[in-house]
Amino acid sequence: MHKSLIALAALLAASPAQPQASAAIASGKSQPSPLAPSEIVAAAPQADWTAIAASDLLVMDLAPDTKGKPRRVVIQLIPAPFSQGWVGNIRKLVAAKFWDGTAVNRVQDNYVVQWGDPDAEDKLKAKKLPEGLAVMPESEYAVDRDSYAEALIDWEKAHPDRIAGTPRQVELLEMQVDIGGTEADAERSPSYRDPYANSVTYYAGWPIAGQVGRDGDASFWPVHCYGMVGVGRDLSPNTGSGAELYVVIGHAPRHLDRNIALVGRVIEGIEHLSSLPRGHGALGFYDLAQGDERTAIQSIRLGNEVKDLPAYEYLSTESASFAKYADARANRRDAFFIRPAGGADVCNIPVPVRRTQ
Amino acid sequence: MHKSLIALAALLAASPAQPQASAAIASGKSQPSPLAPSEIVAAAPQADWTAIAASDLLVMDLAPDTKGKPRRVVIQLIPAPFSQGWVGNIRKLVAAKFWDGTAVNRVQDNYVVQWGDPDAEDKLKAKKLPEGLAVMPESEYAVDRDSYAEALIDWEKAHPDRIAGTPRQVELLEMQVDIGGTEADAERSPSYRDPYANSVTYYAGWPIAGQVGRDGDASFWPVHCYGMVGVGRDLSPNTGSGAELYVVIGHAPRHLDRNIALVGRVIEGIEHLSSLPRGHGALGFYDLAQGDERTAIQSIRLGNEVKDLPAYEYLSTESASFAKYADARANRRDAFFIRPAGGADVCNIPVPVRRTQ
Repeated sequence: MHKSLIALAALLAASPAQPQASAAIASGKSQPSPLAPSEIVAAAPQADWTAIAASDLLVMDLAPDTKGKPRRVVIQLIPAPFSQGWVGNIRKLVAAKFWDGTAVNRVQDNYVVQWGDPDAEDKLKAKKLPEGLAVMPESEYAVDRDSYAEALIDWEKAHPDRIAGTPRQVELLEMQVDIGGTEADAERSPSYRDPYANSVTYYAGWPIAGQVGRDGDASFWPVHCYGMVGVGRDLSPNTGSGAELYVVIGHAPRHLDRNIALVGRVIEGIEHLSSLPRGHGALGFYDLAQGDERTAIQSIRLGNEVKDLPAYEYLSTESASFAKYADARANRRDAFFIRPAGGADVCNIPVPVRRTQ
Repeated sequence: MHKSLIALAALLAASPAQPQASAAIASGKSQPSPLAPSEIVAAAPQADWTAIAASDLLVMDLAPDTKGKPRRVVIQLIPAPFSQGWVGNIRKLVAAKFWDGTAVNRVQDNYVVQWGDPDAEDKLKAKKLPEGLAVMPESEYAVDRDSYAEALIDWEKAHPDRIAGTPRQVELLEMQVDIGGTEADAERSPSYRDPYANSVTYYAGWPIAGQVGRDGDASFWPVHCYGMVGVGRDLSPNTGSGAELYVVIGHAPRHLDRNIALVGRVIEGIEHLSSLPRGHGALGFYDLAQGDERTAIQSIRLGNEVKDLPAYEYLSTESASFAKYADARANRRDAFFIRPAGGADVCNIPVPVRRTQ
């Protein structure tokens, strides 16, 4: 897999130069930074941030809390080539105002918060779904090497400004699997071993896992980290329409990777979901008979339909700042820490997102 | 490290037989189970469960919730050889009823809930600590090979019933680092690669990471998984007394391993902490000026001091049932899943704990 990813990078690279970020992480020769990850992010130049289009945001307004305070959750939809059939359905559901008046129906501790039509299983009461929703095949839970490579090229063309600021054509921060070494400390390369995949990379701001199959071909898929949003479904071959969504509120349930479609991530307001009371029914579903109360969803809209929504941006995962940040997450050298970990897992290196300043 | 752990096992093993659980995981030859992990746990024979002594439990009663419902959190203290100086301090603090009338002061999303004396930093108002608290050195964040080996032997002597039910003397489920292989599926060995350590094992029901140092000696330490309880501290060389405690309520912050003392884990009622409102101050501390409200702690007592407390037990991590459970967590084959992950990280294999039936 390691070789395969390098081959992929070589295939795409107009410049033969090793991506700077990868090189720094792989060699461990970069000067250790005494800054905390948050300080590295704060110091990142504006050129290292990438704008998130408002049209790629879902704005979910829950009913106000018991003190009357608004509760807004902002979700970024995942870009191509991942899960675009479901993302298309979600755009249709938003256009139909499908979620207005639905509710959060499930809160399972250390797992997920789920929302949608609470009467979805009741044929008489269920809300009507909009026409023309795609029925997605399970094969779409991951993409093949060619699709991923095409997407990388497309992304690069669409972001000439991103590329211009860096010395390389293809920007793929490769989290290496087998760095080797038997000791983890600040002098050695950090380890990014992943128990679920041969490698983990970042693509356009998203954590993507990769694996080589038996036939030698590679597949790539987004990762179930904290805050990621997925599509609830029934048993296989059902893949879910997108009408029922969940967000991860606990330790990364990576066993769901490639078993369910990921369509986005919460970039603001996750605390309005993660702090909701846990459900007392099976799997954390709310059980009204046991006194559970659902939280009503007032509306879900696209970001470009919401007045006065702030603009958001993410720290470009191809930037030197992100490479420094990832390195510092793996080897904390700021004042509180006495011993750098020597490694990190991808879900412990969340991609920084902020309101545009 | 792999060799070292095998050497450790050999050192301790009276029987030369390879531990059954490790062998099954390493070879991948065990018959795939169609059961979900929860079903494997439900089917585990009583002999595979180990009682938790009530004297090793902390019972924390928060003030009732807004509906008047009680909120009880039960914490199991970690056994020797880990963090015993801090555990001793905690027993003194409980005996002095130190936490009665203190509060939850910090809730940081995807990180920790922390409690203690809200006035601890105020010399005039701070509660007096009991006499005789140990000042622990940072070296105690991990233990060396000899201490770990001694603890294993002691544990074995103290649990002849546990041992009797199995064909082996030393019971160490070894999560292997380098299983190799380029494809993850049900036919191959699951991967337990860990980016933070050379290996992860289970000891007496607790996840323990291990690493070989430059001098060839090994060190072992408990792991910051969801629900683990640690000791808040000031900057190094301060190591904390134990008066300020936190519990992990998000993705495993493994960068804290060996930087802070872990003293236990929540075995029941974590939802009363994880669903608390997040704090609006720096690091999620409650900021009363911003309208945050602390949650009062009525009392913390040892389990054996609490009337009518249920008895608890954990699924022995040395049992065949646990090996099956771990394997199923790494390769879900139950109806919902279409593709087993092919691996798991230690914090995605939480040790099952239940009320004694």
